[in-house]
Amino acid sequence: MLSKSDVKYIQSLSHKKYRDQEAVFIVEGVKMVLELISSFPERIVRIFATNIWFQEHGQIVKNLTDIHIVEPFELQKLSFLKTPNEVLALVSANNLDDFNPLSDGVTVVLDQLQDPGNMGTIIRSCDWFGIKNIVCSLDTVDAYAPKVVQSSMGSIMRLNIFYRNLPEFFFQHKQMPVYSAELSGESVFEVSFETPSILVIGNESKGVSDEVAMFASKKIMIPRIGNAESLNAAVASSIILSLMTR
Amino acid sequence: MLSKSDVKYIQSLSHKKYRDQEAVFIVEGVKMVLELISSFPERIVRIFATNIWFQEHGQIVKNLTDIHIVEPFELQKLSFLKTPNEVLALVSANNLDDFNPLSDGVTVVLDQLQDPGNMGTIIRSCDWFGIKNIVCSLDTVDAYAPKVVQSSMGSIMRLNIFYRNLPEFFFQHKQMPVYSAELSGESVFEVSFETPSILVIGNESKGVSDEVAMFASKKIMIPRIGNAESLNAAVASSIILSLMTR
Repeated sequence: MLSKSDVKYIQSLSHKKYRDQEAVFIVEGVKMVLELISSFPERIVRIFATNIWFQEHGQIVKNLTDIHIVEPFELQKLSFLKTPNEVLALVSANNLDDFNPLSDGVTVVLDQLQDPGNMGTIIRSCDWFGIKNIVCSLDTVDAYAPKVVQSSMGSIMRLNIFYRNLPEFFFQHKQMPVYSAELSGESVFEVSFETPSILVIGNESKGVSDEVAMFASKKIMIPRIGNAESLNAAVASSIILSLMTR
Repeated sequence: MLSKSDVKYIQSLSHKKYRDQEAVFIVEGVKMVLELISSFPERIVRIFATNIWFQEHGQIVKNLTDIHIVEPFELQKLSFLKTPNEVLALVSANNLDDFNPLSDGVTVVLDQLQDPGNMGTIIRSCDWFGIKNIVCSLDTVDAYAPKVVQSSMGSIMRLNIFYRNLPEFFFQHKQMPVYSAELSGESVFEVSFETPSILVIGNESKGVSDEVAMFASKKIMIPRIGNAESLNAAVASSIILSLMTR
């Protein structure tokens, strides 16, 4: 049985302000919650599950005391998904130490990225290609928004995501090469990528902002053969990361 | 002023059955409709626009007779977007001749792809990399569904998209090499891609089906460095296409 205050509390987590204040975010769906339980049990704050889910998976969560069995219609009230799943978890946000670039790795910088689906997909690709750190401009979409979390497919748990004033960030790390993804520049197939380095991905429609572009040591582009005006931002990032980490 | 029958007709186009029957689909938004007017004016059946849009762009559509000026609240009734834009166009579907592979190109085969956003992004990437033909299994998401059209960003107008029984299709084109994207196989960075050839992309969660996998001449994979369980289907397709068309 759900209390009104539970409902109100969880619904408040659709707002960045409350997610930040509480340092928690929401993960939904059987697959993602099971991954959470097996890989990051210490970060689970509470679980809301239907009886069906609990019958099937209750055994593996028996050490987690804070499990609430709810009716499907109650879960629907909490869910941010169109088709609510059987389970929803409150997860504590990553308590990040200060940014520490990998000695041989790539750091991805997102400059004013706006689309939650793109953000989630970039996080997932970063996780695939072994990237550990993403640094976002202060006006990039919040990585802990429900839609970002869902499209990251669990990868959000494994990455360090920072929000920074980007000009200050670049100034502090000016020894690192900065590759900026643009519509013109050197072909990504010709660049000899150095590491550690930074890859900058710009806004979906406006690209990399002027105040960030001035820190780029090299502008790079994915050669176009056909007629599309641009590539999806998550697609472009992933193509470049596949080559940088090859 | 919109008639009730206009509203009903356009709303019916959310269903594949009626899109097929009428051989039309819907394109929304200022940018996409302007591209449509400049590149494919002959395919525009009707335009519904607000007065604001018409004041600004009416000049360029003066030869298109079938323009309806509507109130913003009326456009809202027709729109499939969360935030309706100023203009919506009915566009005639591509009247396709039979599949004819490019003599030197790549054909993309989609096997049970389900997510409209992925489908649209794949169409956009295909257009970027100069792919002309996509062949879909009969149970792949409909390419003319509103969400697919929107995420293709106009590229859907420039591609030939076929729906076929895939085993029959492969049987008819058995002289072409078939590369199947999987989680294991030869690294995409090691394969010497031949053309003309076929790239097969599978379902988002189940991958390539058994009845299609048996036609693959080579299984290929994008090497994983980190921990994500898989890549987004549109991302994986695009990485492979960037290398196949390099």
